[in-house]
Amino acid sequence: MSYPLSLRIRLASGARIGPGKVRLLELIDETGSISAAGREMQMSYRRAWLLVESLNEALGMPVVDTQKGGSAGGGARLTESGYAIIKHYRSMEKKALKSGDADLQALEKLASRKKR
Amino acid sequence: MSYPLSLRIRLASGARIGPGKVRLLELIDETGSISAAGREMQMSYRRAWLLVESLNEALGMPVVDTQKGGSAGGGARLTESGYAIIKHYRSMEKKALKSGDADLQALEKLASRKKR
Repeated sequence: MSYPLSLRIRLASGARIGPGKVRLLELIDETGSISAAGREMQMSYRRAWLLVESLNEALGMPVVDTQKGGSAGGGARLTESGYAIIKHYRSMEKKALKSGDADLQALEKLASRKKR
Repeated sequence: MSYPLSLRIRLASGARIGPGKVRLLELIDETGSISAAGREMQMSYRRAWLLVESLNEALGMPVVDTQKGGSAGGGARLTESGYAIIKHYRSMEKKALKSGDADLQALEKLASRKKR
């Protein structure tokens, strides 16, 4: 990800939402599989599953629906809550980048003085 | 810190600025000492010093001035760059919170459905 900014959100319930969990949800949506999504992030299935579980628990409802077996060999699909998390997180990120642009440029300018 | 949101910034130079380093700078400013600031964050002097060094290096200039000895027994003071980092980081954080408020409320609402 090329964003110069990432957000960590802490909800009143204690739920924590950050770039790793959100990216994992996006990859589960893309690949239809928790293990494939984890693999793309160099993460064990166990770790990917625990991250999904931590979101399920913090939100009190599943963010991912899993189906076992079937002709497609099972799979994972985001629930509406899963999609909502991605949507609101990415929206906050985009807005933060826009509202913080002048400060970010000022920090970049500060850091670029180093070679002079 | 009670903010429901924290930011991690990655500058083009590779410098990373997050809530831990910024809080450390604020505490160095308050206490006048790297070790006292580290202590307040349950951090060894070595770790606190390494965080300051990583900022110095990434920015190519000191963010903290240290004086050895003297009647006050030495001490640490933020440089202009150190103050600028705090200022711009806290400004971005405040703006992100404001611009992201509707999304944050939507996420809170989602999470609060759990008990129903």
